[in-house]
Parts: sequence; C-alpha cells; structure tokens
Amino acid sequence: MSTQVPTDDLESDPRVKAVFDDIRAFRGTDFINNMWLWLAFDPALLERTWPEVKEVVGKPSSIDPLTKEMIYIAVSVANNCTYCVHSHTAAARAKGMTQEQYGELLAIIGLAGKTNQLATALQVPVDDAFDASRRNR
Amino acid sequence: MSTQVPTDDLESDPRVKAVFDDIRAFRGTDFINNMWLWLAFDPALLERTWPEVKEVVGKPSSIDPLTKEMIYIAVSVANNCTYCVHSHTAAARAKGMTQEQYGELLAIIGLAGKTNQLATALQVPVDDAFDASRRNR
Amino acid sequence: MSTQVPTDDLESDPRVKAVFDDIRAFRGTDFINNMWLWLAFDPALLERTWPEVKEVVGKPSSIDPLTKEMIYIAVSVANNCTYCVHSHTAAARAKGMTQEQYGELLAIIGLAGKTNQLATALQVPVDDAFDASRRNR
Amino acid sequence: MSTQVPTDDLESDPRVKAVFDDIRAFRGTDFINNMWLWLAFDPALLERTWPEVKEVVGKPSSIDPLTKEMIYIAVSVANNCTYCVHSHTAAARAKGMTQEQYGELLAIIGLAGKTNQLATALQVPVDDAFDASRRNR
Amino acid sequence: MSTQVPTDDLESDPRVKAVFDDIRAFRGTDFINNMWLWLAFDPALLERTWPEVKEVVGKPSSIDPLTKEMIYIAVSVANNCTYCVHSHTAAARAKGMTQEQYGELLAIIGLAGKTNQLATALQVPVDDAFDASRRNR
Amino acid sequence: MSTQVPTDDLESDPRVKAVFDDIRAFRGTDFINNMWLWLAFDPALLERTWPEVKEVVGKPSSIDPLTKEMIYIAVSVANNCTYCVHSHTAAARAKGMTQEQYGELLAIIGLAGKTNQLATALQVPVDDAFDASRRNR
Repeated sequence: MSTQVPTDDLESDPRVKAVFDDIRAFRGTDFINNMWLWLAFDPALLERTWPEVKEVVGKPSSIDPLTKEMIYIAVSVANNCTYCVHSHTAAARAKGMTQEQYGELLAIIGLAGKTNQLATALQVPVDDAFDASRRNR
Repeated sequence: MSTQVPTDDLESDPRVKAVFDDIRAFRGTDFINNMWLWLAFDPALLERTWPEVKEVVGKPSSIDPLTKEMIYIAVSVANNCTYCVHSHTAAARAKGMTQEQYGELLAIIGLAGKTNQLATALQVPVDDAFDASRRNR
Repeated sequence: MSTQVPTDDLESDPRVKAVFDDIRAFRGTDFINNMWLWLAFDPALLERTWPEVKEVVGKPSSIDPLTKEMIYIAVSVANNCTYCVHSHTAAARAKGMTQEQYGELLAIIGLAGKTNQLATALQVPVDDAFDASRRNR
Repeated sequence: MSTQVPTDDLESDPRVKAVFDDIRAFRGTDFINNMWLWLAFDPALLERTWPEVKEVVGKPSSIDPLTKEMIYIAVSVANNCTYCVHSHTAAARAKGMTQEQYGELLAIIGLAGKTNQLATALQVPVDDAFDASRRNR
Repeated sequence: MSTQVPTDDLESDPRVKAVFDDIRAFRGTDFINNMWLWLAFDPALLERTWPEVKEVVGKPSSIDPLTKEMIYIAVSVANNCTYCVHSHTAAARAKGMTQEQYGELLAIIGLAGKTNQLATALQVPVDDAFDASRRNR
Repeated sequence: MSTQVPTDDLESDPRVKAVFDDIRAFRGTDFINNMWLWLAFDPALLERTWPEVKEVVGKPSSIDPLTKEMIYIAVSVANNCTYCVHSHTAAARAKGMTQEQYGELLAIIGLAGKTNQLATALQVPVDDAFDASRRNR
C-alpha cells in the first residue's frame, strides 16, 4: 500500500520519458525500479532527483562505488527508510559487497547507534581537540 | 553543560584505570577524549563500550579504516549526535580524508536524507528484484 | 500485525462510546479509523488524544485546513510513521490537495531532509541575524 | 539562542497566570522552568500541555514516578531533545535515581540504539509468536 | 564549534562567487547566511544545493511562500536540525508569520509528534480506506 | 521481505551453535526468535550482541525486569524499529505488564514525543538548575 499509484502510461509525458531513457542508458538495463515510477507523477521532482543520484552516486569520484553504497545504507538505516535499505543493500551486493563486509557494515552501524545514544544521553561536551577552527584558521 | 560530570579521580577505580590504560596503549597517546571520561562513572558500561569500539573500528578488517569513519559519520549525522559528528569527522581527517572526499561524503549523506524522505512520504513498495530471499534460498 | 488488538465490543465502555460518538458527530460519518479503535483499550489515553486532534487540526484557525494536513504529513514523514503518512495524505486529498501541491510538498520535505543533514554534518553555527532575542527584547 | 523569547510580563495574561499558579501549587515551589516560560506566548498551547504533563507524569498511577522519568529520558534521548534530556535527568535524580540505576538506564538505551539499527538494517521479519492478534482474539 | 571552517577568500573561486552572486541578486541583499559559507568548500555541493533551494522554496508555485517555510520548520524540528529550525523560523517571520500562526504551527508539530509515536507503538494497521490504489487505478 | 536470509544449517557453525545453545539455556526454551537467526550470518556480530542483551536486560540488577522492557519499548518506538517494538512489547507482557501499565507507557511515550518536538522547535535554553556540574563538583 502506498500513498500514490503510478499510472500505466507514465512515459506518455516526454519529460518522464527523457528521464527514464537516461536511467536505462546510464545503467544499461530496461529495468526501472519503483522509486522512479513513484516519483514520475511530478516530472519536475523526477528531474531534480535522478540527475543528482546519477551525479553523486553513479559517477567515478574520490570515493569508490561500493563505499558510496555502504554510506547510503548507513544513512538509510538510521533514517529508517525501508525502501532505501532494500534498494541500496541490493546495489551494494551488485557492486561486490561480501558477506564479511556486510557483517562489518552492520557492526559499525549498530555500534554507532549505541554510542550516538550514549553521547546524547550524557550530553558529552565536544573536546577542544576536535575543534576545526583550531586547524583551518 | 552535561547531565553528568566526571570526578577528578576516575582512575582510582582499577576497572576504569584498566580501560584507560588500554585506550592509551592502543592509540599510542595519553589523550583520553571526553566520551570515555563521561562513561567512566559506570565501569561496567565503560568495559562494555570501549572494547567494542576497539574491535569494530580499530582493528584491521575487510573495510578500510577511513571508510569505517565515514560510515560512522553518516550514522551520527542521521542520528544527530553532535559529539559523534565532531569526534568522527576529526578521526576521519586524521586517517587521511581529503576535502574532496569530505565534500562527496556530505553529498551522499544529504542526497540520502532527501531520497529517504521521498520514499517514506510515498511509501514506495520494495521491488521484488531487491528481495534477498530470491537470491539466498 | 500490531501490538494490541481491539476487542469487538469497544463501545460497551461508556467513555469509549462517548469519544466515538463525538468523532462521528464532528466528522459527520460513521467511519472510525483504526487509530481510535487501537487507542480505545485505554479510555483515558483516548480521551486525552481525540479532543486535542479535534481542537488543533479540526477547528477553524489562523492556519487553513489543507496547510495543517500538509504540515502533519511533513512531521509524519520525518518521524517515519507509516500509519500517519497514509492517514494524513488521505486527509489532505480529501481537503483538496492537488497533485501539483503534493509534488511540491514532497519537494520541500525532500529538500529539507537534505539540508537538515548537511547543516548537522557541518555543525553550521546559527547566524546572529536569526537570534530571536535581538528582536523581541 | 532560541527561536522565541518570553516577555517580562507573561503573567499579566490571566490564562498564563492560572497555569503558572497551578505549576507552583502542584510542585510546591516558586520555580518555573524555562519550558513553561517559552510556551506561554501561546496560552492555548500552554493550557493543552501542562495539564497533560501533570496528569501523565505527576499523578500516582500503575507506573512509579522514577520509572516514568526514566522512560521519559529514554524517549528524549532517542528523539535527541537536549532540553528534555537535561530536565528529565534532573527530575529522575530528584526522585531518587542512583548512579547505578543511571548507568543501567544508559546501558539499556545504548543497547536498544544498537539492536534497533541492526533489526532495521536486516529488515528482520516479526516472529509469529509476537503477533498480538493470536493472543487477544 | 563546527566541523569545517570557511576560508576568508571563498569568492576567489569563480564557481563560489557565481553562486553567491546569484544568492545576493535573488534575495536583494548582501547578506549571505552561514549555510552557504559552510558549503562553499565544495563548489559542486554548493552548486547542487542553492539552485534547488531557490527553485523549491523561492519561486512562486501552488503552495504559498509562508506555508513552504512552515513545512520546512516542521521537517527541521522532527529531524532536529538546530540551524535549520533557526533559519526557517526567521524566514517564516520575515514572510509574515504571526505569533498566533506560530503557536498553531507548534501545536500541530507537537501533536503529530505525539500521535506518530502512539501509532508506531501500537503498530496500528493502515485502514483500507486510505489505500491510494483504490482511488487511482 | 528482508535484506538477508538465514541459511537452513546455521548451527553447523560451532560459534553460532554455542550462542544459540546459550540463548536456549538462559531462557529455558527451544524457541530462537528471528533476530538471532538473522544475525547469525556473521558469528562475530552475533557473539557481540547476544551476551550484551543477556547482561543488560536479562540479569537481575537495580532496575526491575519489567521496567527494563518498558524502557526498551520506549527507545524502539522513538527509533521506529518495527521488529523491536513487537518483540519487546511481547516480552513486557510476558513479564507481567498489565493493560493499565501499557496504556500509561504509551501516554508517557506520546507526551514525550510532543514535548520533545516543542522544546526543539522553540530551542528552549536549558535552565541553570539542571546543570549537573553545579551538583557534582
């Protein structure tokens, strides 16, 4: 059950078709996952979202592709996004994440969940040593 | 201002001293950051937390040290832990994170924040293609 | 699956019946949505919740009815409440939310999710210009 | 720095004065903590909030006063409310929370933070044994 | 204290200068708030963020400017972004938000926080009546 | 649907078998709930999680067993962990939580959700009276 249901003829809108064509070309597959089908009711929203995903996660950069997916999983877990946890875990596996790495990723996420709560409960003051202004200026 | 204030003689408790000694030895420095000073009022809690951090983040494993810190930052931002954002950003820099990588890390975290909310707002159903049970069994 | 299951004779409790009668009268329909059925096991909790909803969301005020629902959706998405996302999206549509407005609402929620995470990651200091004490006193 | 600043003559509004008088009488002290000063700009909001706090946390009930404060701390930590973490930790101490209990409270909150993230990351399916509908109907 | 400190000569980078010039021109003021100063260390991130804010929040659309700010506040509160709560509350006031509207906005946000938690605690099943697929297809 | 599926022969790994045996012995039942089946793919993660749960929640201490479960529910609701809400609500009932106590627990969690958001929206400054450093040093 979702709050919006895509129509059957989404690509009759040329703006939607252009984005979907770009997704298919960039990924080299005909498969369009639900996220894009669900966003397509608002072409402007679709046009503002896909290129950012392509740019930030899809293009070669100073962070390797698998690490990007693991970071994405980490945020999605903490933000509790069921869809995103599933889609990015699948993507991380497609990019080579081993079971060993997956177990370690979970260990870090779980530990961060624990220490985040402890630091917040105690309202631990930030050490001066971590102050960026000491370093940069 | 915090909800608990460490006493001046924390290490008079031998259990606390043992953990602090291990922190100093493992890191090769006399500096003990506030997190551990604040947890020390409960030696059992300290003993259950530090070894887990050492094991999960400190030991060589299938995920490299810098990536671990970036994942830790990602969770801490999403969970909104001020202390942890500061301490792990400092740690990531100490482990070689460049400004370029930091900018890309932020771009991923920000984008995930955006798509997480969109998928939740639309309650996008998870694609069958992402179903792990299709793969493993 | 839920953690509590309403009994079949909820309205045999006169306190529950009084609240349900008020819901039906106020909304002009016999339909009682699940939220109220599930809260009814504790009449005091039901009595503290429905009148607040009626007062805050149901009564004419300085914020128009549709805007109230859009704000409610925004909080529910950020808090990740599946039930509330569904019920308030349905309510917003019943109050006239167009597809164009829904797309823009999502765009704002998504963008806020992104900039919220960026500001938290960077721990951006609040500008003096935003300090309310400069204005009020 | 806050987003609103209380005026100096809050109690010139009789609705505000009535609530403040009730707070002082109920607690047996002249001290009004900032939460109420900050809410007072909107008397209706103040009137809807204080009686609920008095009723839910202040009155004798089936959950003892200290436990109530510990539950309040737990939610406030997970929701990351700095003000509430401080005020309810102070309240718990005033109601007799020992350092041993505080340490254990933190251990539970931290552990829950960890297992919450793990269960979400794995999207662990709920066991049938936990299904309330098996029990109640 | 923040995790990054802007250099003094941010606008020596022509990409940063171009964005800052656009902010000043669009808003008709020389004031650049900290968010943009802090993002400027990564020109690509700055270029991907400001135009989206301008487009989504700054341009006339089917949701009026004040409502957009109130929705932004709502998300920022639920996501607990101190900077964003401050900046968007200031922006809402600049766009005419009255104290009465502010009080009502807080009432809705607070009530949503309450009912969100109740629905999650009870895992209330979504009513069939809220199912969008019944409507759209 | 989950992101990982346990194999059928989990206990062929002696480390997994040892943990499962300890769970069965400690709880006096053959039932192993899904959380442990799902974690078992990574024996180290399993070994770091179960003993902490046994120690923090299972052993007699200064906080009684039912209170521990109610605190666990509170955190799990605020963190929005569906699995944990279910499992710990079931555990609280098994430890004697009455419907009256459950109703009051929900009332506290809901109220905290409300006041947490209000204090965050207003950025209420923490009262000096709550400053722990005044007390401890």
